Amino acid sequence: MIVCLLTDYGHEDEFVGVCHGVIATIAPQARIIDVTHGIPRFGVRQGALALRNTLPFMPVGVHVAIVDPQVGSERRAVALRTEDGRLMVGPDNGLLSLAWEAAGGVELAVDVSRSEHRLEPVSATFHGRDLFAPVAARLATGAELADAGDPIDAATLARIELPATRIDDGALIAHVIGVDRYGNVGLDAGHAELADTGLKLGTTVAIEAGGERFLATRAATFADVRAGELILYEDAYRGLALAINRGDAAQKLGLADGAELRLALR
Amino acid sequence: MIVCLLTDYGHEDEFVGVCHGVIATIAPQARIIDVTHGIPRFGVRQGALALRNTLPFMPVGVHVAIVDPQVGSERRAVALRTEDGRLMVGPDNGLLSLAWEAAGGVELAVDVSRSEHRLEPVSATFHGRDLFAPVAARLATGAELADAGDPIDAATLARIELPATRIDDGALIAHVIGVDRYGNVGLDAGHAELADTGLKLGTTVAIEAGGERFLATRAATFADVRAGELILYEDAYRGLALAINRGDAAQKLGLADGAELRLALR
Amino acid sequence: MIVCLLTDYGHEDEFVGVCHGVIATIAPQARIIDVTHGIPRFGVRQGALALRNTLPFMPVGVHVAIVDPQVGSERRAVALRTEDGRLMVGPDNGLLSLAWEAAGGVELAVDVSRSEHRLEPVSATFHGRDLFAPVAARLATGAELADAGDPIDAATLARIELPATRIDDGALIAHVIGVDRYGNVGLDAGHAELADTGLKLGTTVAIEAGGERFLATRAATFADVRAGELILYEDAYRGLALAINRGDAAQKLGLADGAELRLALR
Repeated sequence: MIVCLLTDYGHEDEFVGVCHGVIATIAPQARIIDVTHGIPRFGVRQGALALRNTLPFMPVGVHVAIVDPQVGSERRAVALRTEDGRLMVGPDNGLLSLAWEAAGGVELAVDVSRSEHRLEPVSATFHGRDLFAPVAARLATGAELADAGDPIDAATLARIELPATRIDDGALIAHVIGVDRYGNVGLDAGHAELADTGLKLGTTVAIEAGGERFLATRAATFADVRAGELILYEDAYRGLALAINRGDAAQKLGLADGAELRLALR
Repeated sequence: MIVCLLTDYGHEDEFVGVCHGVIATIAPQARIIDVTHGIPRFGVRQGALALRNTLPFMPVGVHVAIVDPQVGSERRAVALRTEDGRLMVGPDNGLLSLAWEAAGGVELAVDVSRSEHRLEPVSATFHGRDLFAPVAARLATGAELADAGDPIDAATLARIELPATRIDDGALIAHVIGVDRYGNVGLDAGHAELADTGLKLGTTVAIEAGGERFLATRAATFADVRAGELILYEDAYRGLALAINRGDAAQKLGLADGAELRLALR
Repeated sequence: MIVCLLTDYGHEDEFVGVCHGVIATIAPQARIIDVTHGIPRFGVRQGALALRNTLPFMPVGVHVAIVDPQVGSERRAVALRTEDGRLMVGPDNGLLSLAWEAAGGVELAVDVSRSEHRLEPVSATFHGRDLFAPVAARLATGAELADAGDPIDAATLARIELPATRIDDGALIAHVIGVDRYGNVGLDAGHAELADTGLKLGTTVAIEAGGERFLATRAATFADVRAGELILYEDAYRGLALAINRGDAAQKLGLADGAELRLALR
């Protein structure tokens, strides 16, 4: 079975490699896919969005997500099965919630904090190695989810709140939910939220952010405008995003995660 | 079959992981090798050089390369088979050209822009996921190249131009074509271009770059000089390069991609 | 068999991918685990520590480590088998020494500098590709260690020295041996060194570093203190470390590898 890993561990340290080693030791036949380890550190919301967005492109398997600022505290560690048959493992801090909501909800959930699959002694700071990886590896070998921990009520699982878009005087108020390596800026709005704004393909959009004002073209892709020009487009996960053709929109507009923008027909 | 991936996607985002997921879903038996995802963004030339240099060390398989600033535009997406039996997939912007030239030329090429293997709906900005990965995965499962798209004349495939070295008054004029994490500086010249300059192992080389002048030793490896000293050497792909033993030559000499240098016997 | 790779190659360049290609070509059945490629460049000591710490979590296999500032010089390249049956391959500069000491010592060692398994021509600067990867791949296919090179006396293998902690007037003098992506600061001391200092869980620790003084809580995990507060804790490899809950201790305290600290009961 496939084990998919998504963490904020980065690639500078050995955290990811150690999780691979633990999984390969317990489940030699399991294949591991690194979805990403580039979630901003402690970025539970960014991790939850990335997990939800990427899940449809992953083989059905055991999906481990670790962004865990409260590691070692009383926060629960959980494993669950979604209604569409995927297994998920991670801290109970909302990280998994957008993904299991998109996967039809939770069919069964267990608290694995004291799972018999864990590696003893469990460190206070590296539950990826000592808890999440071994639990996932056992599940990948066919162990029963019910045997991985104590049953819990799925209704008690933590969820995360996303910032809300709104329409204000005909303008769309949206927020930055991610910036990628190209400087493309993901927003918490999609096609539906644009409906009342008149922002159609080819129109010019006035964007206010951080006290400044920029003009963008509503377009389908980068190459629809000249190099250096700004576009508002639907990204690969069908959310709205800003980009500069061959440039860095986040840097140019001074945008970081959580920033609020106002988008209006010019 | 093996699928080798080379992109400018970096590791901060989920782009690479999603391509892995798509390939693993379509071709569960295919093994994936990440050649590199560290090509500078939009660096078509750097990607073409890295693809050419690394190809001899990869198992024969499906070689996917994605550095694609014109994604979503009318640029073609192609798949091809080289005379030596490798399959290549990527945008038709010259990225593949140095590699297929080195591999004996193109035996068969098809335009996969509307390939029946693509994932629908094809996004305007993430053809790695929706087009290149699924086409490569199908080829890895044994699908016929001819069935992956519409035949095209190999003579129409895009090529890239490399900067040209020249001899000027006994000096070699060369250009920076890459800088690695150690600060080692790759040049667009090899052993052949040195023939007329008198620069033999052990001689001292005067290097002019950016209005400044540096002295280097023509040597075989870093440890041939003391820590902090500059060498001109033949790198692992048999191109000339500059390095500082235990230091960072690119930083010290202020060199970046494309910079012109003058090398002469002191 | 499993091949585990640990290097200072980083992920910006193609070095890691080329080693994968070489191994996959020679040993198609071998699985590769990337322990880490984020060792600081030329960081032999950091690499040696990471190799030793991670080894217990890796499947038994061929363990390749490459941090090799003297590549191309007369330093030996070695392959060895530990008393507990692991194979190790790397430069003979001390990089492997902490790991084979922890693995019970060396049962057999050979000099592979001129191994018949190497790729010809061997470059002067990329022994990962031309020497270490092919030797490891052959061993992974079952080739005899004794056939990989010329026998050497294990007593002549290079070792590295770690900085020594000491007790000074009731205070513990320790040194930074690593900083991770979260800014957590590893020290060259463990639980044993604390015995004489009175630093128990819950006590306040006075830390002097770089002429400044900070207060930390001796705690089990990040979440034991409020966000922004400093802790002294036992890390996942049972060494002492400093962290700031949801913050960056290395940055806040201005600490880098090798720095000396004084820790005392307040």
